Amino acid sequence: MNKPTILITNDDSIYAGGIAHLISIAKSFGKVIVVAPDSPRSGSGHAITTQYPLRLKTRKVEENYEEYTINGTPVDCVKLALKTVLSNKKPDLLISGINHGSNATVNLIYSGTMAAAIEGCMSGIPSVGFSFNSFAPDADFSAISSYVHQIIEYTLNNDLSPRTCLNVNFPAVAKEKIKGIKVCRQGIGYWDEDFEKRVDPHGGTYYWMMGEYVSTDNDPETDEIALQDNYVTVVPVSFDMTNYDALPSLKKSLTSDE
Amino acid sequence: MNKPTILITNDDSIYAGGIAHLISIAKSFGKVIVVAPDSPRSGSGHAITTQYPLRLKTRKVEENYEEYTINGTPVDCVKLALKTVLSNKKPDLLISGINHGSNATVNLIYSGTMAAAIEGCMSGIPSVGFSFNSFAPDADFSAISSYVHQIIEYTLNNDLSPRTCLNVNFPAVAKEKIKGIKVCRQGIGYWDEDFEKRVDPHGGTYYWMMGEYVSTDNDPETDEIALQDNYVTVVPVSFDMTNYDALPSLKKSLTSDE
Repeated sequence: MNKPTILITNDDSIYAGGIAHLISIAKSFGKVIVVAPDSPRSGSGHAITTQYPLRLKTRKVEENYEEYTINGTPVDCVKLALKTVLSNKKPDLLISGINHGSNATVNLIYSGTMAAAIEGCMSGIPSVGFSFNSFAPDADFSAISSYVHQIIEYTLNNDLSPRTCLNVNFPAVAKEKIKGIKVCRQGIGYWDEDFEKRVDPHGGTYYWMMGEYVSTDNDPETDEIALQDNYVTVVPVSFDMTNYDALPSLKKSLTSDE
Repeated sequence: MNKPTILITNDDSIYAGGIAHLISIAKSFGKVIVVAPDSPRSGSGHAITTQYPLRLKTRKVEENYEEYTINGTPVDCVKLALKTVLSNKKPDLLISGINHGSNATVNLIYSGTMAAAIEGCMSGIPSVGFSFNSFAPDADFSAISSYVHQIIEYTLNNDLSPRTCLNVNFPAVAKEKIKGIKVCRQGIGYWDEDFEKRVDPHGGTYYWMMGEYVSTDNDPETDEIALQDNYVTVVPVSFDMTNYDALPSLKKSLTSDE
């Protein structure tokens, strides 16, 4: 492929260190177009904005590099990028991240980073979400650069399965501790929330959402366990959420013809 | 089961006709607790609110019926309901809807209604999302009452497959035209967006997101086609988004050990 066009977004906003690192790597491949949220949008899932209008701001237009922000969600960014910035011309690759914080296991469902990749995938674009297992705003991504490079190269040169994007998570450890790439299934678990109850100066009660992740799946073939074991984890993610295993029994018990 | 507790939410807000209809049906089964958004939250996907605090307002506390609102997303509603209103005691069933508008096919990924059901499912609660194939705010749900009743009864009395909730969609037709219940897989398609560009009174440009759904899957075993054929469609939905079919080839090409 001669000089691919790569669309980049994230959910931590244009000001995050993770997207800066991803941009610097992507630039070595071809033309890069960045359309990212103008403020942090972590935990926005696959939300779209329909209740207020979207503003697209141009930050930079250079040869082979363009940068825009939107006052919306990561999925808004992908949709508006494809329609307006790219004028319906599909990019060769969509990459999202590098997220500050893991999106392994069920975190992918809450993740704006992965929602952007899934949105790209639904539009028929090879798409990858990258996440780093540290929330530190000043996280050092240098240890993972070669892996990001390798996965971008792989995705540019190989077809992913139909309706499939990649959820890539990196351990936040020194480069020599990273054991390599492991292709995994999504681990199973849940968030055990804790709501901190407070009283505002006017006497009103409000809650801050907090919580911790509880893993219920200790299989080494899951992304969560492999990530803890210092592997770069890659999960093929489908947007077909049908549980095919459940179809036969449900058909037997619920089907009716009137 | 003696007098189950049923948690109800939606994404169209407490003021929508669909949730009122669902509440009226659920009341015939047992204790009903409603925790719904205080304003419309369509298209909020699996978003959670972490950037501003959540307010829980009590609207009604009667024998066997309680009603609350939250200034948050459907997933916020489920999380805050389970932790505070229900004090960690799991309800016997979570139902979400009845959504004004279909959540068949990939719509389920954008849907706040289905996100609430998926959130319940992740917490180990039998969960069902109900949606009606009409956006009309004054939609008449009477034709589908018996089906809603039947599916609630089924879910209270039968175990769903692990990690599985139900995405139920109803045709907006007269009762005698409904052909029965059909268990389906999720149809495949995408939204083709159209952004209407406008200029505000201050000269700034903004966009309104619009679009239309494009189906790329005409299999009668899909929810989309069965819904158009006037079936009540039921899709078993899993929150494990791994594409297992894609694992072997990806393992072969991407695995590395350093």
